[in-house]
Amino acid sequence: MPDHSAKGIYMITLYHYWRSSCSYRVRWALHHKKIPFTSVKVDLLKGESRKEPFISINPLGMIPALKFSNGNILCDSWAILEYLEECYPQNPLLPRSSIDRATVRRLAQMIHSFTQPLGNLRVQSYVNSQGMDGLAFAKHWMIEGLGALEKSLQKTAGTYCYGAQLSLADICLIPQMYNAVRFQVDTRSFSTIERIYQNCLILPACVAASPEKNQ
Amino acid sequence: MPDHSAKGIYMITLYHYWRSSCSYRVRWALHHKKIPFTSVKVDLLKGESRKEPFISINPLGMIPALKFSNGNILCDSWAILEYLEECYPQNPLLPRSSIDRATVRRLAQMIHSFTQPLGNLRVQSYVNSQGMDGLAFAKHWMIEGLGALEKSLQKTAGTYCYGAQLSLADICLIPQMYNAVRFQVDTRSFSTIERIYQNCLILPACVAASPEKNQ
Repeated sequence: MPDHSAKGIYMITLYHYWRSSCSYRVRWALHHKKIPFTSVKVDLLKGESRKEPFISINPLGMIPALKFSNGNILCDSWAILEYLEECYPQNPLLPRSSIDRATVRRLAQMIHSFTQPLGNLRVQSYVNSQGMDGLAFAKHWMIEGLGALEKSLQKTAGTYCYGAQLSLADICLIPQMYNAVRFQVDTRSFSTIERIYQNCLILPACVAASPEKNQ
Repeated sequence: MPDHSAKGIYMITLYHYWRSSCSYRVRWALHHKKIPFTSVKVDLLKGESRKEPFISINPLGMIPALKFSNGNILCDSWAILEYLEECYPQNPLLPRSSIDRATVRRLAQMIHSFTQPLGNLRVQSYVNSQGMDGLAFAKHWMIEGLGALEKSLQKTAGTYCYGAQLSLADICLIPQMYNAVRFQVDTRSFSTIERIYQNCLILPACVAASPEKNQ
């Protein structure tokens, strides 16, 4: 199933923005799997994602994107994470059995498709344009999403979201928690998430991927 | 990687609602792969997803959910779709090569994590509660999401989203288009999507999974 890029023949370039939670996810997976990559920063606040040269990489103007030296381009953080898992199986981020993989994907999707989409800059901006408070809207859905995840984690969590194994669930959760903390969302009632957050923040690959190290 | 459920030992029960686009996706994948299942209807409008007996199946009150006769329960339509693909490889909904799989997942995610999360009943209801028009909000993001997908499909589409092969991208797109048509979103400028929609609506598994056949 892995294609040529799995053989390490092709160099990888990551297009990303330091504060984008989806960029943080991909940076972390790359560092965790010890996959070498070149970094190209795309400043969302300067509108660089919607201009050349990035718009030729992803005409939709969305980051992150991975470009391989053979010209292949991957977009969408979820598609990229699954691709990295398939092609670079070292330091896996999904368990082996399908039922366990389904659990990890379910936990990860509670951030990826339930929380993040309702709080990103694009949505905040639109909500603001409609006379509502975009940041309050984002915070409402962070509390909803993290609250739902906290409930689910009671059955699955150990050191990390899924027992003792770091997984795609953590890769999605921690960047979202970073935003929640930054936006002063009251996360004190999410004690399991708080514990996992602290456990992850000390991992070298998470540190290397953090916004502060990628400004 | 497939676990015991892949051996067809366990019976499957699907908990779903006829008009839920995420339920429609899972019904379609089950029919497409010819996986037998028992159907249990959960009426969202009557609040049945938040009461017993369903709340014991998924404490978060979200459909769809799959229950196996060994007690295993899967939630989240994306996690379920990936699980079915891993354990029931017949009539595949992902291509073989990882780079192609990444493309299909990217297209599917444009619905799953970019469009659907911003227009579901829960979000519409919250937007209404804030004095905005929830349906108008949902329609705005349907136009944004379908428009972005239409652009991406120019490079990938054939009979279906990804060339001649039915894939998870179609499985996610068609239920979303069903909602767009129902909500009278003007989809005339999305000619590639319109064509794929018509090509899919005549497929027996899509017909069997349709809202009308599952009321």
